[in-house]
Amino acid sequence: MSALIPRLTDLLGPAHVLTGDATARHAKDWTGKFTSRPLAVVRPGSTAEVAAVLRLAAAAGVAVVPCGGLTGITGAVMNDGALMLSLERMNRIRELRPEARLAVVEAGVVLQSLHDAAEAQGLYFPLWFGARGSAMIGGVLSTNAGGSNVLRYGSTRALCLGLEVVLADGRVLNLMSELHKDNSGYDLKNLFIGAEGTLGVITAAVMKLVPRPRAYATATLAARSLPDALALLNRLQEVSGGAVEAFEYMPDTYMRQLERVRPDLKSPFAIPHAVNILVELGATAPRDAAAQPDGSTPVTTLLEETLAAMMEQGLILDAVVAQNEGQRRKMWERREAAAEATYARKPVIDTDVALPLHLVDAAMTAFHARLPAIDQAAETFTVGHLGDGNLHFSVYPTRDDPALAARVVEMVEDVVAELGGSFSAEHGVGLSKRPSMARRKDAVALDVMRALKAALDPGNLMNPGKVLPDRA
Amino acid sequence: MSALIPRLTDLLGPAHVLTGDATARHAKDWTGKFTSRPLAVVRPGSTAEVAAVLRLAAAAGVAVVPCGGLTGITGAVMNDGALMLSLERMNRIRELRPEARLAVVEAGVVLQSLHDAAEAQGLYFPLWFGARGSAMIGGVLSTNAGGSNVLRYGSTRALCLGLEVVLADGRVLNLMSELHKDNSGYDLKNLFIGAEGTLGVITAAVMKLVPRPRAYATATLAARSLPDALALLNRLQEVSGGAVEAFEYMPDTYMRQLERVRPDLKSPFAIPHAVNILVELGATAPRDAAAQPDGSTPVTTLLEETLAAMMEQGLILDAVVAQNEGQRRKMWERREAAAEATYARKPVIDTDVALPLHLVDAAMTAFHARLPAIDQAAETFTVGHLGDGNLHFSVYPTRDDPALAARVVEMVEDVVAELGGSFSAEHGVGLSKRPSMARRKDAVALDVMRALKAALDPGNLMNPGKVLPDRA
Repeated sequence: MSALIPRLTDLLGPAHVLTGDATARHAKDWTGKFTSRPLAVVRPGSTAEVAAVLRLAAAAGVAVVPCGGLTGITGAVMNDGALMLSLERMNRIRELRPEARLAVVEAGVVLQSLHDAAEAQGLYFPLWFGARGSAMIGGVLSTNAGGSNVLRYGSTRALCLGLEVVLADGRVLNLMSELHKDNSGYDLKNLFIGAEGTLGVITAAVMKLVPRPRAYATATLAARSLPDALALLNRLQEVSGGAVEAFEYMPDTYMRQLERVRPDLKSPFAIPHAVNILVELGATAPRDAAAQPDGSTPVTTLLEETLAAMMEQGLILDAVVAQNEGQRRKMWERREAAAEATYARKPVIDTDVALPLHLVDAAMTAFHARLPAIDQAAETFTVGHLGDGNLHFSVYPTRDDPALAARVVEMVEDVVAELGGSFSAEHGVGLSKRPSMARRKDAVALDVMRALKAALDPGNLMNPGKVLPDRA
Repeated sequence: MSALIPRLTDLLGPAHVLTGDATARHAKDWTGKFTSRPLAVVRPGSTAEVAAVLRLAAAAGVAVVPCGGLTGITGAVMNDGALMLSLERMNRIRELRPEARLAVVEAGVVLQSLHDAAEAQGLYFPLWFGARGSAMIGGVLSTNAGGSNVLRYGSTRALCLGLEVVLADGRVLNLMSELHKDNSGYDLKNLFIGAEGTLGVITAAVMKLVPRPRAYATATLAARSLPDALALLNRLQEVSGGAVEAFEYMPDTYMRQLERVRPDLKSPFAIPHAVNILVELGATAPRDAAAQPDGSTPVTTLLEETLAAMMEQGLILDAVVAQNEGQRRKMWERREAAAEATYARKPVIDTDVALPLHLVDAAMTAFHARLPAIDQAAETFTVGHLGDGNLHFSVYPTRDDPALAARVVEMVEDVVAELGGSFSAEHGVGLSKRPSMARRKDAVALDVMRALKAALDPGNLMNPGKVLPDRA
C-alpha cells in the first residue's frame, strides 16, 4: 500500500492525487452526519485512467470509493482509509443527438449542464431535483436518483439506455447501447444502476432525452385532505392524457419551517392549510400549448377548469395558478428549498420512504400518532413527491440522542412495512440505511445481493461497507 | 434420480406429472427447428409447489426448465432429460386494482386473459403481439418480450413493478412491490426479467396497466423510402405529443409472402410499394377522442392531415385510414399474420435484430447487397417494429443447408455489429442465438453474466445450456 500513492501520482500527475488536507472538500459530508478520512482522492481524466487506478488499487488491496458531486445524503461516499475516485474531470458530453433524443455523457457531467445542453436543442433531460447544480450523472445513476419528474418520466433507471462500467479488477464493461430493444443476455445495466459504486465504477452513459414541453401549467393549491389531493391528481391525469409532470406535497409543517428559513418563499395563502400541493402539467402537443387570444394556453385552461370544479365541490380550498415564468419559478423555488429547510435545524432525523399512493394518508396519520410516545414534544417536517408515493418525513427531536433517533426511524419503518412500502425510495442506502437493510429487507433478497456482490467484487474493495449490511 | 418421479407424483398428484408420450405437447417446438425429450413435465399449482419441485430436483441433481405458453421461437425450453416445469396451472389474476393501475398475476396467466381483464376496467395492458392468445406472463417476463406497443409503453421490463421468483435451491425471493420508487439495494427484479429461466423460476408479478386509449387513429400507408417513413414517425410524434402507439414496417417482400399464405390479407394498394407502414395513434385525453359532427375524432384528423401534407410533398405515395374498428382490425390482422407467413415456407432463416433507427435503411440495403454472394437466388422476407429499430429479416434459402444458414446469420450479424445494433432484440437467446452470444457479445459482459449465473445457480440446474454460450 505504501507504494500506491507514488504509483497513482505517476499515472495521473500530482495535481490529480490529493492527500492530507487537500482531501477536505471531498471528505466533507454536507449533511454533517458523517466524517470521512480517505487515504487520498484521485481524479482520473478518462475511462482508461479509471481502469488503471482500479488495477493499482486492487493490486494494493486498497478499497475504492467512487464519488461525483458529493450531494448524497446517506453517507454513501464516506470512508476511512479508502481511495476516493472522483469522476469530476470526466465531464464531457461526448455526443448529443437531437434526432435520436439521446446524449452520451461522462460520469462527471453535472446534471444542470445536461439540462442546458438539451434545452439548447429544444429537448429536456427529465431528472429534476434541488441539487442539480452539483449532482453528477455518475452519482445520479449510482443512486438511481428520483426527483420531481419521476411521475411522468421515471427514475434515472428509466432514462438510461447504455452504460460504461469499470469493474473491480480494472476491466471495462461496455454496455454503451442506444438501442430500444436488446435481449442479448442478462440485463447487466440495471444491476449497476443504484448499486452506489459497490459493484464497479460507472464512467459514462447513454441517457434518453425527451421533447421539452412547449408550455407548462403550474399551480400551488391547498386541498382539503390527502385523498382529495390524490383525486385531483387522478382527474388531471385523465383530462390531460397523463400530462402531469410533478405533483409535490408540502404540508403545513413544511410551510412553517420554510417561512423560518426562507421568509421570501412563504406560503402564497392567507391562512395555513394542512395539504399544499405544487402541480405542473407539461404540454408536449402543439395544440395543447397554442397561445389563446387571452394569453393563456389550453393546458393552463384545463388546469384552471379542473381546479375550479373541485373548489366548487369543496375539495380544493384555495389555489394560485402561475401566470408567467417568473411566478412558476417562484413556486418551484418554494419546493426546491426542501433540503435547505430540512437541514437548517439540527438535530434532524430524516427519512425517505415510498408507499402505495392510497396509503400515504394512513402513513402520515400513523407517524404523527406514534411519535409522541417516543418524543412527546418533537416537531415534524414533511415534504414529498406525492405522485410517486414518496415522503420525506423528518423529525426535529427535543434532544440529540442517537438512541432516540433510532427509535424514530424504527417507528417510521414499522409503519411503512405495515403498509407495504419501502424504507428507501430515492436517496439510496449508503451508510445511513444499512441498519434498515438488515432489519427490513427480505432475507432471501439480502442473500442474493451478497452473492452478486461476491461474484463481481470478490475482494470486497468497491465501496465496501455500503448498501449491504454485515451478516447477522 | 430414479426416485424423483415418484416423489414428484407424491407432491403434485399423478395428473400433474407427465412422462413419456404425455410430454409430447410440451416437448414440441412449433417452429420445427428443435426437438426436445424431457424427463417429465410437472405442473405445480402454487409457488409453494414450485419451490418443493425445485428442492426435489436440486437434491436429485436434475435440471429444471420452466415453460409457459410454448410460443417462443429460440428453442429456450427445448431440453434433453430435464424436468420441464410448466406454470400453466398458476393462472390466477390475484388482484386487479384499477385505481392503482396494476394487476397482480401468476406466471401462467395468458396474455390475452390479462388484456380482457384490464379492458373490463377501462384499462390496457400494453404488451401486444401475435401470440397473445397462448403466451403466458412468466414467459413474457422471462424473455422480456416486446411487440408492437414498445414504442409508447416499453418492453415487458418497463411494465413490471414486482416479481416473485423461486431460486434454484427452492427459496422464494419476494420482490412483489407495487412501489414506483424503491432503492433498497440492488435491482434484482431486472436480473430475472429476460434471463429465460436460467437464474430462477418466475412465479408471479405485479404488472402496470395504462389507461385504455379512448380512440385510435390507424392507417396503412406506403412511404417513398425508409427515411421518409421515419420522417413521418417524427412528425406524428411531434404533432400528437408522443401518441404513436405502433409504427410497423411491412416491405414488399412481406406483402408478397402474405398474399401467398393469406390472400384475404393482401395489400390494400393497387400497386406494390417497397415501404408499407401500419401506424396507430392512441388518444388518451378526452379532447383528442371527442367525436366530431362528421364522426371523426381529433386524433384521426391529426393523422389524416399529417398524411395529406406528406403526400403532397411526395414522401407518402398512398394511404388508407381505418374508418371503423372493423377496418382497424383488418389492418392489424395483416401485421399479426407475420409469424404464420414467416414459417409457412421452409426452410427459413429468421433473425431478430435491433438497430439505431436512422441506420435501419442502411441495414436493409446491406442485407440485400451481401446475400447473393451467399445464396444467389435466395428470397427474403422482412417485417419489423420500425419505431423501435427492430427488424425481423428472414431468408428463404435455395437449399436446406445448416452451413448456408450459418453464413446468412453471420452476414446479418456482421451488418448489425457494424451499425451498432444487437443480434437479439425481442425474442431472446434461447438455444438458437447461443452461437451469436459467443461470437458477438462483449467478452467482459459474458464473463460477468457467467459470474452471475454461477452465483445464483451454482449447480447449473436452471435451464442449463441456454442463453450463455459454453466457454471457448
